[in-house]
Parts: sequence; structure tokens; C-alpha cells
Amino acid sequence: MKLLDTINNPADLRKLPRHQLTPLAEELRSFLLDSVSKTGGHLSSNLGTVELTVALHYVFNTPQDRIVWDVGHQTYSHKILTGRRDKFHTLRQFDGISGFPRRVESEYDTFGTAHSSTSISAALGMAMGAKIKGEHRHSIAVIGDGSMTAGMAFEALNNAGVEKDCNLLVILNDNDMSISPPVGALNRYLARLMSGQFYAASKNVAKSVLPAPLLEVAKRLEEHAKGMVVPATMFEELGFNYIGPIDGHDLDSLIPTLQNIKQLKGPQFLHVVTRKGQGYKLAEAEPILYHGTPKFNPAEGIKPALAPSKKTYTEVFGDWLCDMAKADKRLVGITPAMREGSGMVRFDKEYPERYFDVGIAEQHSVTFGAGLACEGLKPVVAIYSTFLQRAYDQLIHDVALQDLDVTFALDRAGLVGADGATHAGNYDLAYLRCIPNMVVMAPSDENECRQMLTTAYHYPGPAAVRYPRGAGIGAAIQQELTSLPIGKGEIRRKGQKIAILAFGSMVAPCMGAADLLNATVANMRYVKPLDVELVKQLAAEHDYLVTVEEGCIMGGAGAAVAEALSAEGICKPIQMLGLPDKFIDHGDPAKLLALVGLDAAGIAASIKARFGDEPRLVVNNG
Amino acid sequence: MKLLDTINNPADLRKLPRHQLTPLAEELRSFLLDSVSKTGGHLSSNLGTVELTVALHYVFNTPQDRIVWDVGHQTYSHKILTGRRDKFHTLRQFDGISGFPRRVESEYDTFGTAHSSTSISAALGMAMGAKIKGEHRHSIAVIGDGSMTAGMAFEALNNAGVEKDCNLLVILNDNDMSISPPVGALNRYLARLMSGQFYAASKNVAKSVLPAPLLEVAKRLEEHAKGMVVPATMFEELGFNYIGPIDGHDLDSLIPTLQNIKQLKGPQFLHVVTRKGQGYKLAEAEPILYHGTPKFNPAEGIKPALAPSKKTYTEVFGDWLCDMAKADKRLVGITPAMREGSGMVRFDKEYPERYFDVGIAEQHSVTFGAGLACEGLKPVVAIYSTFLQRAYDQLIHDVALQDLDVTFALDRAGLVGADGATHAGNYDLAYLRCIPNMVVMAPSDENECRQMLTTAYHYPGPAAVRYPRGAGIGAAIQQELTSLPIGKGEIRRKGQKIAILAFGSMVAPCMGAADLLNATVANMRYVKPLDVELVKQLAAEHDYLVTVEEGCIMGGAGAAVAEALSAEGICKPIQMLGLPDKFIDHGDPAKLLALVGLDAAGIAASIKARFGDEPRLVVNNG
Repeated sequence: MKLLDTINNPADLRKLPRHQLTPLAEELRSFLLDSVSKTGGHLSSNLGTVELTVALHYVFNTPQDRIVWDVGHQTYSHKILTGRRDKFHTLRQFDGISGFPRRVESEYDTFGTAHSSTSISAALGMAMGAKIKGEHRHSIAVIGDGSMTAGMAFEALNNAGVEKDCNLLVILNDNDMSISPPVGALNRYLARLMSGQFYAASKNVAKSVLPAPLLEVAKRLEEHAKGMVVPATMFEELGFNYIGPIDGHDLDSLIPTLQNIKQLKGPQFLHVVTRKGQGYKLAEAEPILYHGTPKFNPAEGIKPALAPSKKTYTEVFGDWLCDMAKADKRLVGITPAMREGSGMVRFDKEYPERYFDVGIAEQHSVTFGAGLACEGLKPVVAIYSTFLQRAYDQLIHDVALQDLDVTFALDRAGLVGADGATHAGNYDLAYLRCIPNMVVMAPSDENECRQMLTTAYHYPGPAAVRYPRGAGIGAAIQQELTSLPIGKGEIRRKGQKIAILAFGSMVAPCMGAADLLNATVANMRYVKPLDVELVKQLAAEHDYLVTVEEGCIMGGAGAAVAEALSAEGICKPIQMLGLPDKFIDHGDPAKLLALVGLDAAGIAASIKARFGDEPRLVVNNG
Repeated sequence: MKLLDTINNPADLRKLPRHQLTPLAEELRSFLLDSVSKTGGHLSSNLGTVELTVALHYVFNTPQDRIVWDVGHQTYSHKILTGRRDKFHTLRQFDGISGFPRRVESEYDTFGTAHSSTSISAALGMAMGAKIKGEHRHSIAVIGDGSMTAGMAFEALNNAGVEKDCNLLVILNDNDMSISPPVGALNRYLARLMSGQFYAASKNVAKSVLPAPLLEVAKRLEEHAKGMVVPATMFEELGFNYIGPIDGHDLDSLIPTLQNIKQLKGPQFLHVVTRKGQGYKLAEAEPILYHGTPKFNPAEGIKPALAPSKKTYTEVFGDWLCDMAKADKRLVGITPAMREGSGMVRFDKEYPERYFDVGIAEQHSVTFGAGLACEGLKPVVAIYSTFLQRAYDQLIHDVALQDLDVTFALDRAGLVGADGATHAGNYDLAYLRCIPNMVVMAPSDENECRQMLTTAYHYPGPAAVRYPRGAGIGAAIQQELTSLPIGKGEIRRKGQKIAILAFGSMVAPCMGAADLLNATVANMRYVKPLDVELVKQLAAEHDYLVTVEEGCIMGGAGAAVAEALSAEGICKPIQMLGLPDKFIDHGDPAKLLALVGLDAAGIAASIKARFGDEPRLVVNNG
């Protein structure tokens, strides 16, 4: 570990002679494997970007030159080389370093990423900013082939391609996969570029490899049919200078190429081919398994987990999807490149003709579902709460406005833990319930999740079920496909004075809190339509109302209850508990929930602090 | 008008002999010009799609075959030919036919559109639906070159290109413009395709036009460098069969081409070249002017409007932008293809190096702004409220989470009138205020709008000003660039018992209502941060609170007030007035506001109905 120990920032790296970079890369790879196997984290993608990271910091003058890492889960080497080696063992832990680039963490993290396909837009903004300010610096976006399928990346290429005097370099890190296996036409195109079947590269390169007589013919041909002979790549058509593909694990290719590109003006596009899991045989063989890893022994690899005592909500969804597909042949399942994360592997296997992985394309996934619904199919769009933000307009304009029968299965609602603020599903209740025609549900346990999915599926309009990451309370799951009545909650515990209106994952801790307070607890089930009759009943029978949700308070389920009280002309002391109005960093989810007061003890304490033994409420009815 | 009068549906059209289609198209064009000049509406785009519409309904078996019209403002001919000729004089009027396709209006309107770039996704969904159901039908997306710049269109192409056995036809209606002049690399590419400089079309076509000796050489070359000789278009690279470009005003090209395409399997891409305004010289010369027209005399054309007595909010923004740009050279202005609509024509002219039209690319526009902000520039993103829905994730993940200094100027907030539900800016208060770090303002008049824009600009984090379509109350505008204190409202009228907390455009009607009730009126100014001190003061000094906003009640500004009361432990009768939880159709904005009770009389009536002479409130404090 000698070399790596001497690198405290990229300036140290740039002092190394070239021949030391290869051993440094090997040390880095060992460090990565050792560290990630102890903390858990993203492994495959980081093993794949070791050399690229070394080369970029070696050739470019970071942080003056800006590197924007798309998605950013491949930045472990970058973090280790930019002063965070000693903290790397705190990866993704509470108060530890983030698994993604963060501007507040390092000046080398020029742009916070985590959601896919933002890097070209951000880097172009930086490049144009430098141009306007008359500063000479390079702006570099490093983007994977999966991220390139998102429309946002195309929008940025389309805009950048006409900016002929900006220093923008887009590096396509082509490892032939997203998290899920690759899909789509662009992927096939890139494969052709890589295979050389499509004879690409720049015109000069193309010509230089032609045998002389053919070159002569080519020239003549070109005169007759301009542009015909040497086909440009798609990226050249979009205004970029395309270079590649080159081997992204070969520093002897990477460094001279990057050094040459540094001298070029205008938008540059470098196609780099890497392998996920490079250098660790087990990850090379199963890059999806080693995409995000638990702790494991590198000598043995990841062991099949022991049969866990509780199913995750993701598994509950996956099982439901297959069961419902068996019961109704109109069901189609759609995922924007999250087959594994959304629990659709078995569905894909059993119902391939009704399974659609549309790529990292949330916008398209929703409107594609709308189109299917127009034909009488029953689309289920499985999407993380945080990623539905990408398809918000499509949900409003294409689905809700037309009252189309699309079911949304929103995984990772609420706090998500190690992935942190970027992935938090905290806003869905607020941003969904304001949309007309929507039905929005939150299950209190795994069995109710299954029932709600069935309910949403049978409901003939747009309906969303939002459920948390990980396991629930371990409720027994009934196999029947049972619907719940629309807009009806239930009372789970009868108490006195205080009625707790609990939503989704907060029902369980509220039951605990209620035991301490002898409060009533309602499992509200529906954020929309809210069970107004139940709200009225609870208001009539209690002195105080408390709403509790794992979502932002602003505009959330508690606000819905306040609106209902107002609409009914009921004036009642109400306390709203939920997630505070700030972005919450990564850490253990249970710990984070406790920190914001959303465990049983915290809920009880908040209620006591407000309503106490004697109410501290300012009652003022005018 | 003889021929057109005989066409009550496409089946009638399909009975006509081919030679009658050209005169029919001419009649249709005359009808369009005559009708739109009387009602106002979209003209240029509709004059450009007359022949294409005739040809599509002539060749395809509508409505069994599905046509999805992207954006949909070019569907007037489609509406006239599908049974809505007699109602066409009610275009865009209350209870009249919509300016966009709507599923509830006609079975020929297979998919409601209005926002751009949804058509390929929807049509692919329909095509896959037909495949799954074993039905033979064609699904056709008609999309403009402007719409093709949005990432969503690319996402759909990427997904469709691998579906080799679906009947999908994408027709690119290439008229070299969005509403604003064309931008971006794709546009330049399409121009090359059209000019023939890029030698395109399908391989067979390409070869057939080569002189025989060259063809032989080409064949040999191809053997040596596979795929090299005949460059494929970008659309072929994405898996489509590309056909074109063909003249979209020539029925003798259109009809045989479409008939041939009908026989082909797999995803087809037809490149059609049309001219906006075709057949009406004035619109051909100035397609932007005739994009959306008022009523006018076709013989004279659109006359310059008399200097209006009041400025629109759009003009207030445009003036502010230029003035602020003069005062601060860090200002950059960004629009996603809405230069005219957002009032940025003068800014583009005066500050071209700081003006960015990024194409119809809302996602990119916001993250591009974030990148500029990282470099110390001061981006102002001008975007309609309804279109910011397209960039919701970017606003959260790239701007708010990093607390970047980006100013959002949200035009068309609230009801928008003739464009109807698809364009309504009703949800922004709800979907923005739930996001941490956001500042959200709504001006009560034009001068305050200018002050709020200045405030947002100087605020060192993300801030949005949302203002309505059209003119305000005619307030005098001070030229100074004055900031308002953050999070502070003001009392506009002192009254008794009832305090009306009015937001933005509702301040004016609330003042009228308050005169009838002798109520207090506060101009709250900020939805976030809410002026909690003012709320407390109003609660202490009055018996009842009423919130009024031109936005959805669910999760909106009224809910914010209820949350503040709850957080402060204040129990107070509150009534929330705003837009109801339903999509509101097109019509005169003032009339629509009156219909939902948001004019002065309606607000006063609602308050009286609730709090009356004697409060009808159920007061229940436990």
C-alpha cells in the first residue's frame, strides 16, 4: 500500500511518473475491494472505473477542471484519490462519507449526482459558465451507457453539440449495462460501435486504415455522394467530435488520448469501454450481484443470504405481480431499468411477453403505460418514489388528466437509508395527492401492501401504492388477491382523548406510542381519497388529533387531514408529525427515523410535549 | 365548400377518388383560415398539416388504426374531418371543442396531447397493446422536429427500435421550427438530411441512385468495411426503417408512400417536410406571428395591437430580465424553447451571449442552470408553471438539494384559459413548497412581480416567482430593482372578525370581497417561507381565517397556513378557498375563475356561507 498512501490529493498523483500509475491502480483496486467488502456499497461499477479515474485526475488539473460523475456511485476511486482515503471506512454510514459525490463534501465533487443522466447538462452549464467568464478550464461528464438511454442525456447532447467554442468533454463509460441488463436500441448501436461491425471512429482514422486503392475509390465516391463514404457516428451527427472506442482499463490508451483531447476545441466525445467488476473475478462474472453489496469475505464472495425471517416490500410486490399476472392476462409490468431493485426478476422470467424494461426512461415508462391502458391492457408501473419525480408531468398530463387505468407501485417511499437524500421518497404524498383523479395509498404492513396493490389494480383509474424500502413488520401474507374499499381507513386501537391518524409505515410505531398514551390509533390507509367520515368520527370522539406520516409534513397527509377538517367546518387541535423540511443525509433508516422523532418513543414524546397532561394548546375560537 | 360538406367522418373521405383529395385539401385550408381568423387559435401549424391529415385518414383505417398527434395543436384538420366541422366555430371556447385532441371529445382522438413529445411513447404503448392482444392495427405518432428535441421522444425511440414486430409508424413532421426558432444539433442534422448533403434514405434507395460503376465499387467497399458505404441515418441506428424525406404538401408523394409503409413490419420512420403557414402567404412569411393568433381579417392579416393599457406579466418579466441583466453581468437567461411565450425576445437581442434556448428540454434547462450556478453565474430559468412539471426531479435533485442559486420565473400559473387543463398551472404551489430550501412567491400585481423577481434573484438559493397568464391589475411599475424582505407579507386592508389571507392573483378579488364583508386582507406574498408571525397576528386579532389562492387547495398555500397554525398550537376556524380537485376545461379565464368562486363576489359568498352573520362552524376544542 505504499504508493496509495502517498496520494492525498490529485496534485500528489500528478507528481508520479507514468510507470507508477499501473501499480497505483492495482493498489486502488485492492483497497476498494477490501474496504467495500467491510462496509458494503457499490462494487462492480467502482472496480470498472479505477483506471479511468486515475487517468482523469492525472491528465486534468482538478479541481480547476471539473469532473461531473453521472449517477456517482462509481466515484469511490475518485473519493480515495481526493483526500478521503482515511474516511473511506465510514462509507454510507451516518455522519460518514456519502456513496455519491456531494458538493458539501469536497471541492472535487463539483456536482452532486445520484439520479441518472444529469452529468452532461451540469458539465455543459459549467463549460458555458467558464466561457462567459473568460476562464479556461475543462468540464468533463463521465456517463455510463445505461444513463445515456435517459432522455435528459439526449437533451444535453442536442444542446451541447452546437456550442462549438466550449471546453466540454463527454466520456461514455460503456460497460454494456445499467444495474439491470442493457436494453434498447442505443445499447445495440453502442455494441455495434464497439464490435467494429459499424465502421466508425473519426473520418481521418477511418480513412487511414483503408487500403490505399480503396481509399482512392472512397475519395472519388465521396465527391459523388457527399458524406456517403465514411459514416459518422450518432454523436458526430449531434455535433461532437467522436473518439474511440478505447480500452478503459489500459492507462497507455487512456492517458495519451486524454492528453490529446485536452488540446482540442469544442464538444468532444470519448467512448471508453470498461468492464464492471474488473479485476475481481466474482464480480466480473456476476456484475449485477456485485452492483450493491452487503458486507462479505472477498475470498469467498457474497454468500446466498439465509432465508430471512421477513419479506421485503419489494418481494411482496414481486410476488403479487406474478400472482396477479396469472389471474389477469391483461396485466403488463413496466420498469425503467430497475428489474432487480423493483423485484421483477421472476415476473420477467415467467411473463417475458408482458414485461417491459424500457431503459432509464421514467418519462417514457409512464406514458408508454398510458398508451397500453388506452388499449385495455392493465399496466403496472414499478418505480421508486424518488424516480417518479422524473415522470411527474407524464403522470399528470398523460395519465391522471385522462383518468387512465395505470397502477403505480412506488418502492423506497420515505427515508431510504444508505443512499441518502438524493434517493429519499419523502415528497410523493404531497406531489401526488394534489393531482385530480389520483388514488394514493400507504400500507401499514406487508399484507395490506398486497391488498392495496390489488385494490389499485382493480381501481379503474390511476392509483399509487407507496411502500418503504426493506422489510415490514413481518405480517402474515394472505394469498388471496383481496381488494380494500376505496377511501376507507380503520381504527386499530381504541383509546382516549388523543386520536393518532397514522399513515403507512407509521402505523406500527404509532401503536407503540399509543400504548404509552392510551391513545386511539387509526390506520388511515388512504391519503387520497381521505376517509373524511373517519376523520369526523375521530374528531368528535377525541380532544386532540395527531397525524403521523413518513413523508414531508408540508402538503402531506397531515395537511390533507387539516384540509378535511376545514372543509367540514371542524375546528380541532391537530398536531402534524412527519419528516422535517430539510434534506436528510444517509444513515441507518431506523436511526434516522428515531432522530426525526418518528419511532414510537419519539412520537409519544412529541404528543406529550404538545398536549401533555394538560394541553399547552392556545385555544382560540374567536 | 361542396366536397368538405360531404365529409362527416374519415370513412366518407376514404370513398373519394384520389383526384378529389387535392381540391378537398384546398377547401380544408380555406375553412381553417376562415374559421381560425374568427375564433383565434393555432394557425401556422394547422396550415402545415392539411395534406398530411388528409393522407393519413385516407390511407389508414381510423379510428381502428390509431393516430397520436404530438402536441396536438396541429389537429384542426383532423377535427374537421372527424365529425367536428359543425362545432369548429366553438374552438377553445367555454363548452366548445378543445384546441387539442381529447379522448372524451372523439374516438378519433386516441390520446390527449398538449405538452410536447409524448406521442411516440403513447403510440408504442398502443402498438404493443395490439401485439399482446393479437389485434392487427397500425399505431402512428405524428411528431414535429421541435418536439423531437425533448428527451422523452428519444427515450421512446430507443425503446421502440428494438420492438421488431410491432406496427409502429413515427412520422416526423419537419417544418424546421418549434414555436420559437429552431435550435440544437438535431435540428442541424435534420437540415442536412433534408438538403441531401448527408446522403441518406434507405440503403436500397441509396444504391439505386448510384451510377452503376460506383454501385459496384460500393459493393466491394462494403465487403471490406462493413456498413461503411451507405451511412445510416440516426433513426436507422436506433432500429427504425427510415423513409424520406418527402414533400408533406404533395398528396401524390404522401399517399403512395403511406400505402407502401402500411405493408411493412416493425418500427417505421417517415420523414415528411412541411411548411408552417403553407398556403397563406402572411403566415408562411411570419410563422411565429401566426402560431397562435387572435381574431383577424384574413385579407389584411394580423394588425399590430394597439398599445394595450396594461402590461402582461410576461412583459413585466421580459423588461425585468433586461434591466437586471444590465445591472448584473452574471445573469444568464434560459428558456426551453419559449422565447416568445416567456417574453425573452428582447433579452435574446440585447444579450445573445447570455441567452440560452436549449430546445424543448425542460429537464436539461434546469440542470444546465444548476451547472451555471456552480460557476457563480446567476441563471434565471423562465418556464411555464405547467412545463416545470417536466423538470420536477431536476429542481429537487440538482437545484434544491444542493441549494443552488437558480431563479425560476413561472409564467401561466393558475388557470390559463383557452389552452385548458393540460396547460393549467394549478399545482406549482403544492409541488414546490414541499421541497426543502425552496422560496416560493406569488405577486399580487405587476410591480410586486418585478420586486419578487429581484428578490428571488438576490436570494442565494433556489427561488420561484409564479405569476398568471395575461395582464394584471394595471399597477404602476417602479423602475428601481427593489427587493422585498424574505418571508414577509403585508396587511392590505384592516377589517374585523374575518382575516383573508390572500396569495398572488387572489389579492385583488379578495380586496373586493373584503369590502363586502369588512374583512381584513393580507397579501401574503410568500407561500414559502410562510409569514408565520403574520398568521399568528391575524389569528389573534380575528375570529376566522380564510385563505384564497389560484391553485389547488390540496397541499397548497391554504394547507401551509393550516400547518403553521398546527405547528404554533393555534386552533382557529379556517376556510380554504382555491381551485377544486378536478381538471378544469378551457374557456375564458375570468369566467372560469367566477365559476369556481374565485372572483370577488364568489369569495364573499363562500365566506358568508361558512361564517355567515352567525358562525355555522362546529367549534369543538375537546
